[in-house]
Amino acid sequence: MSKNVPVGVSARHIHLSAAHVEALFGPGAGLTEMKPLSQPGQFAAGETVAVVGPKGTFPKVRILGPARKATQLEVSRTDAFALGINPPLRESGDIKGSAGITIKGPAGEVTIDEGVIVAARHIHFHTSDAEKWEIRDKQKLSVRFGGERGVVFENVIARVSPDFALDMHIDTDEANAVGAKTGDTAEIIG
Amino acid sequence: MSKNVPVGVSARHIHLSAAHVEALFGPGAGLTEMKPLSQPGQFAAGETVAVVGPKGTFPKVRILGPARKATQLEVSRTDAFALGINPPLRESGDIKGSAGITIKGPAGEVTIDEGVIVAARHIHFHTSDAEKWEIRDKQKLSVRFGGERGVVFENVIARVSPDFALDMHIDTDEANAVGAKTGDTAEIIG
Repeated sequence: MSKNVPVGVSARHIHLSAAHVEALFGPGAGLTEMKPLSQPGQFAAGETVAVVGPKGTFPKVRILGPARKATQLEVSRTDAFALGINPPLRESGDIKGSAGITIKGPAGEVTIDEGVIVAARHIHFHTSDAEKWEIRDKQKLSVRFGGERGVVFENVIARVSPDFALDMHIDTDEANAVGAKTGDTAEIIG
Repeated sequence: MSKNVPVGVSARHIHLSAAHVEALFGPGAGLTEMKPLSQPGQFAAGETVAVVGPKGTFPKVRILGPARKATQLEVSRTDAFALGINPPLRESGDIKGSAGITIKGPAGEVTIDEGVIVAARHIHFHTSDAEKWEIRDKQKLSVRFGGERGVVFENVIARVSPDFALDMHIDTDEANAVGAKTGDTAEIIG
């Protein structure tokens, strides 16, 4: 039984806390849903912010909603060089001691001391997919991408939840290195 | 016997024909050697050029010397998006039907219809290394990089010559996807 998973390429994006949404967009402001994402309940917001590092700025970084407990900016290593920061490779949500950044919105700006990471590649599994394939939450997997730039990614983290839909997330560096795009299929081989 | 190879990360760079060196830097101009490269006789030149695509420009692209028969610009997929061009993945020297670009120097500019590629990852083997490891010219290899972003790159092209020094070349997208840098070691596993 081939364990094929759909691939989603994550461009740089930001999750904001509710307090930071208000700090950046004004008192009482909320995020507007522009487009649903592959994970149930998650969406690309209509709003963007600027992120400003010591060496460079990205003027329009998409916000993903809904608001989270803590603000988190996810960038590729290439983006990090352009910003002039050195964020660690982390799982989403694991931001302690990560890199800082300045975030600018139409109504204000916020500087965070931590919250910037390079997201570790991972696969979201619905509990039923994980059971069928005998995969445990946090298990590290090897996943093959075919094609002329074919690779096997090791240390792909399994994340299992009844709230998840089956989807593998890689960042733009990984996608460009492989020649992969959203909608491609990869195979779990170990 | 582990088949370990040193890794070199190739940033975007350009090789120029002697005619284009003169077109860009003036009649009688030549390249000056700034720094030797890992391959015998190759060098980073003191000179840079601007490359101008429909969507973006890189103002300072390093020239690698000596001059070649045909001008060739090697970029990453990320660079290609920034320039607004769609170069094919190719071996160095295989530029027929590849992408075009405009190149600007202090004394003139040149537009080429072909010559822009994304370089296919490859390993240079001295003939003696290839014999020792029983590797043939043009053979496709699988090469493992360790670490938290560990990968196995498939379709790594072997290039064997008595003029080569052992070195694996990947581009910046591949390096950033893996967390690799020049001077790292990778292992041929198949």
